[in-house]
Amino acid sequence: MNVVNLQQKFSLFSDHWHPRIIGELNGQLVKIAKIQGEFIWHSHANEDELFMVIEGQMWIDFRDKTVALNPGELIVVPGGVEHRPRTEGEVKIMLFEPASTLHTGEVEHELTKNDQKLI
Amino acid sequence: MNVVNLQQKFSLFSDHWHPRIIGELNGQLVKIAKIQGEFIWHSHANEDELFMVIEGQMWIDFRDKTVALNPGELIVVPGGVEHRPRTEGEVKIMLFEPASTLHTGEVEHELTKNDQKLI
Repeated sequence: MNVVNLQQKFSLFSDHWHPRIIGELNGQLVKIAKIQGEFIWHSHANEDELFMVIEGQMWIDFRDKTVALNPGELIVVPGGVEHRPRTEGEVKIMLFEPASTLHTGEVEHELTKNDQKLI
Repeated sequence: MNVVNLQQKFSLFSDHWHPRIIGELNGQLVKIAKIQGEFIWHSHANEDELFMVIEGQMWIDFRDKTVALNPGELIVVPGGVEHRPRTEGEVKIMLFEPASTLHTGEVEHELTKNDQKLI
């Protein structure tokens, strides 16, 4: 039962679009990621996903709108909703999702990462 | 599916030890609270609880140790573990926990709040 410092955890890696697990509770995982550029369109059939921006600005494209997220802002993307995260510079985000969630959703892609251990 | 700004949500209330719901996903709730002073000792039998500090500094007493949490830091308190949140000044925190969690845990107390709607 340890205190997790987000910036210390971000300092442990530098690659983009590769979420790391920093906590788990009730079958859910808390993850962080550095992201930059445009991700792929995807959805998670039955799993809601929370995005929170820690540093930088990101956009999430939906099929019918785009939202901007700044530090201290979050959004819950319901299961089944197609979305595409996108940034200009590097952005630090926190994610909250079920342990079963693959970040590329239904899409098997070279970007797919599936770490199962805490950093 | 809206963007939630934490500071805007914090501006909607001023009472202490009264968590408000700002999001829900996969049967879990995202809550925020303003806290000040000492809460009661309590535990949640089967529910893990995440505390993250947004502003200020808090301590969480456990029976065998005390941890300090600063902005950008979080901790997961496993189900069954007795804990007591404590601050000096006002502190803004974010919580993740199952929808079934009462913040005073097994203890029925005048501080017990049980809001079930999003603000």
